[in-house]
Amino acid sequence: MTIKIGLVGCGFISRSHLRGWRRVPDAEVVAVSDVDLARARERAAEFDVPRVYGSLQEMLQAEALDAIDVLTPPPGHKELVLIAAVYGKPILCQKPLALELSDAEEMIAACHRHGVRLMVNENTRWDPLVQALRSEIAGGTIGTPFYARFDSRYPIAWPTTEYPNSFLLNKHRFLTNQTRLIISEKMIHFIDVARFLFGDAETVYAQTQNVSPLLRGDDLATLVIKFPQMFIVVESSWCSKGYIRPSRRFVSGAIEGTEGTIFLGGQRGVTVVSDQRGTYVPAFDPDPQEEETFYRAQAHFVECLRTGAPFETGPEDNYKTLAIALKAYESAASNQVVAIPRLDAGGS
Amino acid sequence: MTIKIGLVGCGFISRSHLRGWRRVPDAEVVAVSDVDLARARERAAEFDVPRVYGSLQEMLQAEALDAIDVLTPPPGHKELVLIAAVYGKPILCQKPLALELSDAEEMIAACHRHGVRLMVNENTRWDPLVQALRSEIAGGTIGTPFYARFDSRYPIAWPTTEYPNSFLLNKHRFLTNQTRLIISEKMIHFIDVARFLFGDAETVYAQTQNVSPLLRGDDLATLVIKFPQMFIVVESSWCSKGYIRPSRRFVSGAIEGTEGTIFLGGQRGVTVVSDQRGTYVPAFDPDPQEEETFYRAQAHFVECLRTGAPFETGPEDNYKTLAIALKAYESAASNQVVAIPRLDAGGS
Repeated sequence: MTIKIGLVGCGFISRSHLRGWRRVPDAEVVAVSDVDLARARERAAEFDVPRVYGSLQEMLQAEALDAIDVLTPPPGHKELVLIAAVYGKPILCQKPLALELSDAEEMIAACHRHGVRLMVNENTRWDPLVQALRSEIAGGTIGTPFYARFDSRYPIAWPTTEYPNSFLLNKHRFLTNQTRLIISEKMIHFIDVARFLFGDAETVYAQTQNVSPLLRGDDLATLVIKFPQMFIVVESSWCSKGYIRPSRRFVSGAIEGTEGTIFLGGQRGVTVVSDQRGTYVPAFDPDPQEEETFYRAQAHFVECLRTGAPFETGPEDNYKTLAIALKAYESAASNQVVAIPRLDAGGS
Repeated sequence: MTIKIGLVGCGFISRSHLRGWRRVPDAEVVAVSDVDLARARERAAEFDVPRVYGSLQEMLQAEALDAIDVLTPPPGHKELVLIAAVYGKPILCQKPLALELSDAEEMIAACHRHGVRLMVNENTRWDPLVQALRSEIAGGTIGTPFYARFDSRYPIAWPTTEYPNSFLLNKHRFLTNQTRLIISEKMIHFIDVARFLFGDAETVYAQTQNVSPLLRGDDLATLVIKFPQMFIVVESSWCSKGYIRPSRRFVSGAIEGTEGTIFLGGQRGVTVVSDQRGTYVPAFDPDPQEEETFYRAQAHFVECLRTGAPFETGPEDNYKTLAIALKAYESAASNQVVAIPRLDAGGS
């Protein structure tokens, strides 16, 4: 039986989602909605989606949907998830789930109350490189990890000599007004990878900058995240000048252990230097498209709906990632170390 | 008139000091002392120093010295500075001045009470690269700095495949028992450079690791130091595996500003990418010997003794550097952000 998906939000990233859905067996996007009806029509035509709506509510009233894919800008997520929950529809929601923890808690509680399943679309979990990192660490080739650093720098916050057409201003214009910016939008991926690799964090300390006069939010941030046996440094910048635009591999940096180091960001994305095994590059798809990771997340969502298995990035798990990202803002504002809260019982 | 220097401590670094003193006009090392008299004799013979003593006190009683150069391991600094102060002799003391702030305060107060001038031998200040960085920033070619990162990694904490003879274990064996290690011994240089470039810091947050089983102290540390208008990340490691030993240029990293970025650690140690001036390498001595920086510090010490001018790295200034380094340990132990104290009035 084909699972009928209704997609909400037809902005830039909807193309990646729609290309992914095309490839998921037994799933079909039967309708899209957007407050900008012209944009919704355009996207529907492009991907042969039969029907178009101006709101989620209209779409839910008219369609017999099996699940909702929410990919509007983050400030809209809460209202849409609450509506879908009332209609009892399983939800795949683009990260970040929310820009305030209290909003996330409300969304998760509503889904629980209505018995609705919620998965956060944390697509980086499905990056083959991330999966390879996990295997390497589990395999013990670098011994016990004691430190990691993830660094990403893209000069996209303002036009520069090298990049006169700012990606952020042209393709993600909604972000220019968001006060919670690079941590919640970009670094949250690397935070999730860190949790996936190293477990649950205890505290976060953050410093942020807003450098670009064209943005309202943080365009450079450094987080120090403390785990029980190690700490990691996560850093991202959209405002740095003079950097060469890196490959699309998710970060540069290193994961250091007692028996060796995994270097991130090289030619094939990762190199391992191990006392036990010398120098080598672990096997993984060397350059998957970002869309591949969306497809894998979508396939996982559908598979779990079918089997009833828990989502990799269900509310309990993703709340921990979100909490680190959002508590980082509290830390930066107060210049204090902030403890990472856990979700109270009651989430689904 | 030649200034007669008595040198205390004939370990590894004394060769660099003695080579430096040879070049300072109108200064002469007339005696050396060490608790290991055989080592003192050996060093004296090597550098044609006429007389040798088993303690500073003996040396002071027997010699008409004009100044003392203290370069024992840090735990010995306090006692030696207090003795030299009683004898009224100006002191050049190797960094770190102390391993506890209270010790530094006591040493500075004693010098003040006895009217004795004290300079901390923070030789990195005199590195031509550091001077070039200061000129570049003052010249405005990268606009207003908003972030800097200094990173140094040397695989010297334990024998590795690449470096079977650990420098730390062979040449600086006294450090293996020191519980305050990489921050106070190595990173303090980069902290001082940061203050030299960016002014006074407000707070420090630190995480540390002790990875090598052959050391008691911290062999990896990350500090986030907050200045009024910017923050910096300082990171050093002696325990990382698989890193290629870098050039002796003091760090890799970057200083980022609104108009461009200074990249550290390239072929000639620094590259500037500036909106105003394109890409260029500022002029500085491309590869000075570390000893050159010792010589410059020593020449500054003698020149200030002669003219009465204040030391670049006198107690008031160096206390601020030391306070950041030592408060970092307090931060790492408590997992809290720590404010940087200032020296109470009374220092000289």
